[in-house]
Amino acid sequence: MNIDMIEAARQRLKGQARRTPLLTSPFLDEIAGRRVFIKPECLQHTGSFKFRGAWSAISMLSPEDGAKGVIAYSSGNHAQGIALAAQKHQFPAVIIMPSDAPEQKIKNTRKLGAEVVLYDRATEDRDEIGSRLAAERGLTLIKPFDNEYVIAGQGTCGLEIAEQAAEAGIEDATVLVPCGGGGLTSGVALALAAKAPKLTVRPVEPAEFDDVARSLICGKREENTRRDGSICDAVITPICGELTFPIMKKHCGPGLVVSEDNCLRAMSDAFRRLKLVVEPGGAVALAAALYHGEEIQGDTVIVVVSGGNVDADMFVTALEKHR
Amino acid sequence: MNIDMIEAARQRLKGQARRTPLLTSPFLDEIAGRRVFIKPECLQHTGSFKFRGAWSAISMLSPEDGAKGVIAYSSGNHAQGIALAAQKHQFPAVIIMPSDAPEQKIKNTRKLGAEVVLYDRATEDRDEIGSRLAAERGLTLIKPFDNEYVIAGQGTCGLEIAEQAAEAGIEDATVLVPCGGGGLTSGVALALAAKAPKLTVRPVEPAEFDDVARSLICGKREENTRRDGSICDAVITPICGELTFPIMKKHCGPGLVVSEDNCLRAMSDAFRRLKLVVEPGGAVALAAALYHGEEIQGDTVIVVVSGGNVDADMFVTALEKHR
Repeated sequence: MNIDMIEAARQRLKGQARRTPLLTSPFLDEIAGRRVFIKPECLQHTGSFKFRGAWSAISMLSPEDGAKGVIAYSSGNHAQGIALAAQKHQFPAVIIMPSDAPEQKIKNTRKLGAEVVLYDRATEDRDEIGSRLAAERGLTLIKPFDNEYVIAGQGTCGLEIAEQAAEAGIEDATVLVPCGGGGLTSGVALALAAKAPKLTVRPVEPAEFDDVARSLICGKREENTRRDGSICDAVITPICGELTFPIMKKHCGPGLVVSEDNCLRAMSDAFRRLKLVVEPGGAVALAAALYHGEEIQGDTVIVVVSGGNVDADMFVTALEKHR
Repeated sequence: MNIDMIEAARQRLKGQARRTPLLTSPFLDEIAGRRVFIKPECLQHTGSFKFRGAWSAISMLSPEDGAKGVIAYSSGNHAQGIALAAQKHQFPAVIIMPSDAPEQKIKNTRKLGAEVVLYDRATEDRDEIGSRLAAERGLTLIKPFDNEYVIAGQGTCGLEIAEQAAEAGIEDATVLVPCGGGGLTSGVALALAAKAPKLTVRPVEPAEFDDVARSLICGKREENTRRDGSICDAVITPICGELTFPIMKKHCGPGLVVSEDNCLRAMSDAFRRLKLVVEPGGAVALAAALYHGEEIQGDTVIVVVSGGNVDADMFVTALEKHR
């Protein structure tokens, strides 16, 4: 993995992925006690950054492999990214999704033309199911984060941050990134290490699913003991990637951990101050920026809001709990 | 009023107003039965397009007049636009608001550095208070739409639409714009007439407040009979502007009228498909695009979403009513 792969991904993504803006609010600056810049990947196609990595990987397939189809396993955002990117390439897509994924994500994935196969998060192994189906039908498995082209695609978000920070006159800053398997975090970290080395990435996770924070402390990949039951479904994985972890270890600062309740609170603040719809897992970095300021250095923080695919009920809960 | 004034406003707004993106969703295309492009001014500073006009007008003041300060009457989006633009110029701002305005709006306006002067709707005359304060302190009154610099500022949204449409390969389209006093509608219409004459603006209003649609039919300014009681507060005015109407008459196609319920429905669709928070009045044009397709010609529609300053209760109502 290197910066050239991210630059190449950007060429392939040109005219396909959206260059999301960099947003600000004086109200958020006040809450955080420093300048806050928001990179809203909830405004990306399919409502999350995942479209970047999906397009990056699918656009590398040969016409022959593409015609056989692709397969992915995902709680939802990677699924939608793959489904749309495959649809636009006119390639078939099979998506393996946990049966407890938000209804909207399952429905959307089907509407984007993909075949959805559901599995039980607690009792079944999605990797095993994915590998078996891939072998049976000759599908190309596109892993959600442990795939160089996927990481390179997510890294294009980092290239944009580097440029937009420069345009905004930001010289150094902490860049908070929601972290599940580490595809976005490692891609952004790699891009910034090359393009804006004074912007330091720190991964953010929900409490009880802080495997990356712990892994960065002990220097090797740690697992989560819990596997489900979080509202932050978008950033819940058993363990981070074999490819992503070394990149994070090399380039990232210490991880931050936030409560689920603070994710809901951040969703409510994003509603009021940014006019953005953010999902709980997509709000972890914003929660860290707003309510964990004492754990952050410097006068400027850049926050990636990674997705906005949240059911109405959960969104209403956030608005009613945090007025 | 001419295109040069809008171009000049753009120069003044450079680095200040946000260039909002042009968003799409395959799901919205499907509902509308044609391509839909969204210009989300809810992502503008202070949550509505009003910041453009406010900055445009305030940036024209001499240092002497600016130092004395500006004054505006508004409990809504214009108030916040003026407050932030004045604060950034380090000019004092006085906003006259009714004492029964929502606590949050009063608080926000004060937090943006403005002096809020409350008056009692029942016993006091806001024009009398405003005139007295303006005279005493030498404040400059900035009207919400009948001001050439304000119209020019809102027109910068039209310049962006012209450029973004060209980038997206759009040759001709209907451009739907939420319309109250006509500042945004006339500014955008003027910009597009000069820069992209195949993009035709049509104003959109809520039912029972369709003065502009009626005025365009009969050729002279008509009043609304109702004055309040609409959830679309952002686009409710007794009559459109003396400056804005001739521009709309010259450049706009026929008006469209949508129900309040369809505004709530459009807010729910924007939540799910665009990850945007839209206020009822800001959603009128989106409602027309999605649910009044039979009244629109052509295969492409561009929709301005004008603002996102909505209370949580109203937003929850929209989500719960339209699942």
